[in-house]
Amino acid sequence: MQFEHIAFVGLGLIGGSIAAGFRQRDAAVRFSAFDINTANLKRAMDEGLIDDIASSAKAAVVDADLVVIATPVVAMAEVMEEIKSVFSSAEVVVTDVGSVKAEVCDFVADLLGQPATNFVPGHPIAGSEQAGVGAANGDLFAGRKTILTPLAETESEAIAKVTALWETLDATVVTMTPAHHDEILAQTSHLPHLLAYALVDTLSSGGDSLEIFQYAAGGFRDFSRIAASDPVMWRDVFRTNSGPVLAALSQFRDRLDEMEALIRDGRVDDLAKIFARAKAARDHFSSLIEGDDD
Amino acid sequence: MQFEHIAFVGLGLIGGSIAAGFRQRDAAVRFSAFDINTANLKRAMDEGLIDDIASSAKAAVVDADLVVIATPVVAMAEVMEEIKSVFSSAEVVVTDVGSVKAEVCDFVADLLGQPATNFVPGHPIAGSEQAGVGAANGDLFAGRKTILTPLAETESEAIAKVTALWETLDATVVTMTPAHHDEILAQTSHLPHLLAYALVDTLSSGGDSLEIFQYAAGGFRDFSRIAASDPVMWRDVFRTNSGPVLAALSQFRDRLDEMEALIRDGRVDDLAKIFARAKAARDHFSSLIEGDDD
Repeated sequence: MQFEHIAFVGLGLIGGSIAAGFRQRDAAVRFSAFDINTANLKRAMDEGLIDDIASSAKAAVVDADLVVIATPVVAMAEVMEEIKSVFSSAEVVVTDVGSVKAEVCDFVADLLGQPATNFVPGHPIAGSEQAGVGAANGDLFAGRKTILTPLAETESEAIAKVTALWETLDATVVTMTPAHHDEILAQTSHLPHLLAYALVDTLSSGGDSLEIFQYAAGGFRDFSRIAASDPVMWRDVFRTNSGPVLAALSQFRDRLDEMEALIRDGRVDDLAKIFARAKAARDHFSSLIEGDDD
Repeated sequence: MQFEHIAFVGLGLIGGSIAAGFRQRDAAVRFSAFDINTANLKRAMDEGLIDDIASSAKAAVVDADLVVIATPVVAMAEVMEEIKSVFSSAEVVVTDVGSVKAEVCDFVADLLGQPATNFVPGHPIAGSEQAGVGAANGDLFAGRKTILTPLAETESEAIAKVTALWETLDATVVTMTPAHHDEILAQTSHLPHLLAYALVDTLSSGGDSLEIFQYAAGGFRDFSRIAASDPVMWRDVFRTNSGPVLAALSQFRDRLDEMEALIRDGRVDDLAKIFARAKAARDHFSSLIEGDDD
């Protein structure tokens, strides 16, 4: 194992699951952690996930050879300012786990006046409606993809180290640019969440919402489950990735407009062609969709 | 058991599952069936689901005390014309299992020049992306709701008989007007399917669709599964229930417009309020959503 001391700044579902995954695989690594939620930290200590509770982000990263920033996206700027010195240290590698990558890269570059060579932005594609360290699961990343978005300036040794972190947890690591990551996630994750929130809110605002939900079956169940996701985390996603999300939404609207016109005009055979095309795509890609057990 | 001979006109997933459910519960009922797909009928005979293969809809219903019309919605008009005489017989009760109810009620009334007193329209809320008698499952309706939409003219004895059919299969029976059924289903089922088809088609039309689907995780998986549903069945739903669907879509669009404006204007705290409201509704109603195992 190439890590001796991993420091978590923010210890929720993702940070906790990283620690649990290492523990489960008998890796001899020391974990220190800071979180504004001290109950989270106590719980992680009690469960043996971490070795040390730090009193601040700054205290957590002392002597660490890897720093994992796993706070909500909205808190990252403040945290990064606090631990700014780690970005210029040759002894440590820094990564994060945020759902949006371009903004965090830009922020670090602005903070330092240049891109950090030891910062490897990351995003494990392992969503869950659950949140908090209490939901930590050492196999959360196993068989899933983790996307890393290093810049041209990022040292290859730092990339290798963060790759090793995720491969230890049995994730598959892929790399791409921050902008490309943000576009892909806007389409496959952020837009679906927006639609699910919009649908559930539309239905629950009706006067007969109690009745409506009684008759909601399979389709609605699958569709709406993601509307149970953490509102604050998703607020931050839509703040920090608004451009790609609005672009994806615009494409979606064009298609929906087209389908609405077909319904209104009774041109349902043309509608069925779109349905068939979508079904063929979904069936074709079913094996590629992570966690799909159809 | 109050049935001696149940005739199926159309024997796919729903008809096959009704037959399988009776067989499983050792009910001594004779089943006859007609389907334009003779392979379906042969399969059902081989598996012991039915007793007689009929050569036509008309032949299937001879001597039946209950006729279950379980064809795709688009085929119902033709079938009902063919077996028109059953609607004026005192010896038989007729039901159907279509996803849309007002149109079928109107059609029967037009066909006879008056509402049929022995026709009890029904809709089991037991969706599946699977189709065909090969997917038949005797417990498909157990613990689920079946909605009946009898008219004022419908004989109470006929309603009781169809209620008994579903209760034998361990479904919970509720009754409402055809129009109310269609409005509720437009919101909880038809609109979600439209959105899922639109999203999958939007994503799969992009030049990098192969790549996109590789990174699609939980949210997209849940959201898009229903886009694997049968395109022809869903075409018919949107043809026969266009009014309520367009009304539900219009409400949804208003909410989506509002949310888009909040993203564009950076008013993400207001966006988070909508997310929180939707999450609260989804969490609150989770126990009411059929088949939800969260």
